[in-house]
Amino acid sequence: MSPDDSLRRARAYLAAVAEPPAPALAACVAEHGPVRAAELVRRGAVPGAVTDEVEARREHVSGTRLLAEADRAGARLLVPEDPEWPLERLGLLAGAAEVGVPGMGAPLALWVRGRGDLRSALSSSVSVVGARAATGYGEHLAAELAHGLAGAGCAVVSGAAYGIDGAAHRGALSAGGTTLAFLACGIDLDYPAGHSRLLRAIAEQGAVVTEYAPGTPPRRHRFLVRNRLIAACGQGAVVVEAGARSGAGNTANTADALGLPLMAAPGPVTSASSVGCHDMIRSGKAVLVTSTAQVLEMINPLGAAPPVDPVPASRRTDSLQPRARLLHDAVVACSGADAGQLAQECGLPLRSVRALLPELELAGLVERRDGGWNASAG
Amino acid sequence: MSPDDSLRRARAYLAAVAEPPAPALAACVAEHGPVRAAELVRRGAVPGAVTDEVEARREHVSGTRLLAEADRAGARLLVPEDPEWPLERLGLLAGAAEVGVPGMGAPLALWVRGRGDLRSALSSSVSVVGARAATGYGEHLAAELAHGLAGAGCAVVSGAAYGIDGAAHRGALSAGGTTLAFLACGIDLDYPAGHSRLLRAIAEQGAVVTEYAPGTPPRRHRFLVRNRLIAACGQGAVVVEAGARSGAGNTANTADALGLPLMAAPGPVTSASSVGCHDMIRSGKAVLVTSTAQVLEMINPLGAAPPVDPVPASRRTDSLQPRARLLHDAVVACSGADAGQLAQECGLPLRSVRALLPELELAGLVERRDGGWNASAG
Repeated sequence: MSPDDSLRRARAYLAAVAEPPAPALAACVAEHGPVRAAELVRRGAVPGAVTDEVEARREHVSGTRLLAEADRAGARLLVPEDPEWPLERLGLLAGAAEVGVPGMGAPLALWVRGRGDLRSALSSSVSVVGARAATGYGEHLAAELAHGLAGAGCAVVSGAAYGIDGAAHRGALSAGGTTLAFLACGIDLDYPAGHSRLLRAIAEQGAVVTEYAPGTPPRRHRFLVRNRLIAACGQGAVVVEAGARSGAGNTANTADALGLPLMAAPGPVTSASSVGCHDMIRSGKAVLVTSTAQVLEMINPLGAAPPVDPVPASRRTDSLQPRARLLHDAVVACSGADAGQLAQECGLPLRSVRALLPELELAGLVERRDGGWNASAG
Repeated sequence: MSPDDSLRRARAYLAAVAEPPAPALAACVAEHGPVRAAELVRRGAVPGAVTDEVEARREHVSGTRLLAEADRAGARLLVPEDPEWPLERLGLLAGAAEVGVPGMGAPLALWVRGRGDLRSALSSSVSVVGARAATGYGEHLAAELAHGLAGAGCAVVSGAAYGIDGAAHRGALSAGGTTLAFLACGIDLDYPAGHSRLLRAIAEQGAVVTEYAPGTPPRRHRFLVRNRLIAACGQGAVVVEAGARSGAGNTANTADALGLPLMAAPGPVTSASSVGCHDMIRSGKAVLVTSTAQVLEMINPLGAAPPVDPVPASRRTDSLQPRARLLHDAVVACSGADAGQLAQECGLPLRSVRALLPELELAGLVERRDGGWNASAG
């Protein structure tokens, strides 16, 4: 069941009439429903708190016109009444707003470019964010992690910015996986301009999403407001590189405030681009991660066993008891020595040396030649 | 008061007659005193557990000869009866052995090359350890940290190995500070050979120390046993680079078992040399550190304020309230706009915009020109 046109027009109007997040307007919509709320706003028949949020634009916005503009840009309006609305993820924001976390609140609608089903794409998802001023190391790592996550069936959520965001989207795309970009401007604007082609590719293989009406230009505060969507839409967030103050840090704080697992990748301490990540790890806010498997383990601790991280090869002498290992070291060091010399070398009693040598011989670790003991070549 | 020659000869004999750590022999020395214990060992009049530890060497070792050899190598024997014995640090090892931590136990004596007072040098000290197979990054960082620690009056303790150890010693030396190298062989042997000059420099500006008698060659197990001294002699330990399995990991585990603060420096996740550090941080065993100040804070949390880490410069708009910042963003974006246009752009009520613009003007952030508003250049 798809909501009817009047409802969609009402939502398009409501989402544009106030600068998000607009808690008083959201409460008004929850109370009266979107169609009636839009009418009341248009007529100026709303309480003072709502008026504050809408008065500057209420006479200038048209839901019909916005829907037409979105259509021309190849985008559609997704509303909470749609079955595709990612309620599990965006419900987090409504819940956080209700308990008083500042700056939270679910969007009133979302403009979407891309055919994918948002709710199903976000049923397994990780936000990968980081600095625009990323290093080659950071971009490489973001792409690797995103590639691995997408390959494991996890949607990669990010913000389409230069640097880490772009690398994360690209990594997911290269794995043939799903990736979602949340914009801080209208769906009809390609921002940043240098990512036009990337945004098209994201829309084809996943979705480009924004709560800002067509024509809305990006502004500094909109990036911060947008970041709450990126945080909420991952089941966990990974920060790959972040300077001492950064938008990625803001997304990370939001993920943390929403109770989502926050992860950060380390880097060289000599790199200013890793300072933010190291701070998060030091303070215990973020868990250090170095691999896709470690990220998957965090967002799905009870899930199927993730791919195993490589373990170091063991040495043949690892299983030896301390005394046997001590003796083995002595044999390695003193080729051709007899039991008495070995005892003195390693400090074990002669009778222990005599008892241990046949054990080491049986284990294939030493061999007797010409009356002396030698380490086995194999 | 310096202990007499017979006592020093007895300790030289006891330290060499068993392969350290030798818990039964240590208990025997504690019970009878070193002179009497040495006599009993030489005569074979000791319990079975002590016999096990000493029988291979008891007839071959001479304290007098070892003292002469050390003298020729420019070294002296430090014994627990000396006021210079670093009791605070080595007492940790005796205490750990008493509560059953395996492989612990204080040394029975220490061979020392260098004029410095060990106890006073170790009253403020940090162990800096890491991989022999270090990267340029790791060596640079170890040297930087050690330089900073030594400059802050902290002795730098390490193991004189290639890689991180050597870089840490060099960093401390270059700051004109104190550094101590603990060897896994006799004091008369330069190991590794390529560090002969470094060891001489360490002895001149700090001390080279070992519990192994002159002539004792390095062996694999001796490095592990030696590591407990490195761990105990720092008030905290910093691991700069460590592979998945490494001697540095062993030192780190020992520091942890001794209840000392364990720290690890992060590195690129693409570097095999940082895997061990990342594992320690992930598991919560080590705290991530990136600077000398952070290390000093860990070993001396109540001490004088350490040098402050640089904080990011603040922006002039940082102190603005959210609505004022929103409006400021709009002025920046829409030069020359009037109050009505700005209200629509940022979504604030017109009366709020009219109230906030003079505030921003007073703060020197915006200015009116030709009837429109512009961001101030300054």
